[in-house]
Amino acid sequence: MAETQRTFRAVVAYDGTRFAGFQSQPSVRTVQDELEHCLASVLKTESRLVAAGRTDAGVHARGQVIRFSTANRIPADKVPLALNRLLPADVVVRSARVCEAAFHPRFDAVERTYCYRIDNEPIPNVLTRRYAWHVRQPLDVSAMQQAADSLLGTHDFAAFNSAGSDFQTTTRTLTRFECRRLGDEVTILVSANAFLYRMVRNLVGCLREIGSGRQPVTHLAAVCESRSRQQCSAPAPPHGLCLTEVKYQS
Amino acid sequence: MAETQRTFRAVVAYDGTRFAGFQSQPSVRTVQDELEHCLASVLKTESRLVAAGRTDAGVHARGQVIRFSTANRIPADKVPLALNRLLPADVVVRSARVCEAAFHPRFDAVERTYCYRIDNEPIPNVLTRRYAWHVRQPLDVSAMQQAADSLLGTHDFAAFNSAGSDFQTTTRTLTRFECRRLGDEVTILVSANAFLYRMVRNLVGCLREIGSGRQPVTHLAAVCESRSRQQCSAPAPPHGLCLTEVKYQS
Repeated sequence: MAETQRTFRAVVAYDGTRFAGFQSQPSVRTVQDELEHCLASVLKTESRLVAAGRTDAGVHARGQVIRFSTANRIPADKVPLALNRLLPADVVVRSARVCEAAFHPRFDAVERTYCYRIDNEPIPNVLTRRYAWHVRQPLDVSAMQQAADSLLGTHDFAAFNSAGSDFQTTTRTLTRFECRRLGDEVTILVSANAFLYRMVRNLVGCLREIGSGRQPVTHLAAVCESRSRQQCSAPAPPHGLCLTEVKYQS
Repeated sequence: MAETQRTFRAVVAYDGTRFAGFQSQPSVRTVQDELEHCLASVLKTESRLVAAGRTDAGVHARGQVIRFSTANRIPADKVPLALNRLLPADVVVRSARVCEAAFHPRFDAVERTYCYRIDNEPIPNVLTRRYAWHVRQPLDVSAMQQAADSLLGTHDFAAFNSAGSDFQTTTRTLTRFECRRLGDEVTILVSANAFLYRMVRNLVGCLREIGSGRQPVTHLAAVCESRSRQQCSAPAPPHGLCLTEVKYQS
């Protein structure tokens, strides 16, 4: 009798600082390789895992979603601890549950949320240095929020799509775009049905120019309408970015 | 003519993860050695610096205060940037100002504040792992706060004084002792005129036992009244602790 495979959907978090990104690549340390190595050892998983998004080098995650299969009979609620025992300190499996074999973390996702942290004080905060972009100039968060509001809804975001990506369409729907200040930290939360390549970092790069007064509040909408990558400000660095949540219909 | 020395008072922050504590020691990496090396290079400071507190290995700081002297004519407001250019990424000078030569960061301090962070969720948060103690069991923060309230004011804190310390008196005055929950994180803020050796970590160790229901709310006051170190719960680990502020009369 052939072994019955169960398919799992798991939520994964990682500190991207010492990774060359999520996706497996030769000769560098990636989150996917660490996870697959661990899955092979602990659950004898042979096939490759599938993830919701391929985060860039330095980008963190609290809510990356992966799918994998195993013939191992381990109860679903024991999966995180079993994997975390072997995973390095900068990757954890937060939860795992059995799902349909047809579940696809990327194609089935209906909404993704990213959080971008800016350390906005004269001298960098040494305790958030790995997780927040240090911007010395005081940022006007209400101007940033006003600009962000103008981008909510469905638009062609081609101007915020970095080179090297190949999407069938550059139209996306932004469902949330919030800029908040808590003390010296400015946090930008952005949700959409899907994102283009480096889209969040390109959006944050523009918001920073608006927040520091180097561009008017209308800059973000003007860049978007131009559909030209050349109009977009330089992208924000990767280490301030974190994939916080991926939502599905069920 | 002899060079005129100016004395500076500076606020220093560091990530304690890769330090064997603040105080200079042979053959290990310390915050004091990094600062003194930098002061000698940039400002030709020859004498040793004096600090408000000698934090243990792994303990962080946002508000450590140091004193040093220099004959260098650099404007006071340029001191942080000049030093930060040479300091490693895990130490920064946040501010500096000229002070009386007689100023003593430790003896002149009238209040110190520490913050202790607990990551209180089933699976550790990989992004706060260096800065928060992971406690899996859900903590009852209102029970912790009730216990903390009982310790406000002036008491003999001998029971919370770890071995290896030598104080003339173990009486201290607690002016603030707050336990708060924000999502999965529990934060404990504690201020006092001065602290005994490992006092905050010993207090937090007791609070954790109370929060998880293993000890009654009266545990903290009972330990304090006993004046016996043997009654105290195991200290909380160093990496959740941060020296946030040191206050002076002027």
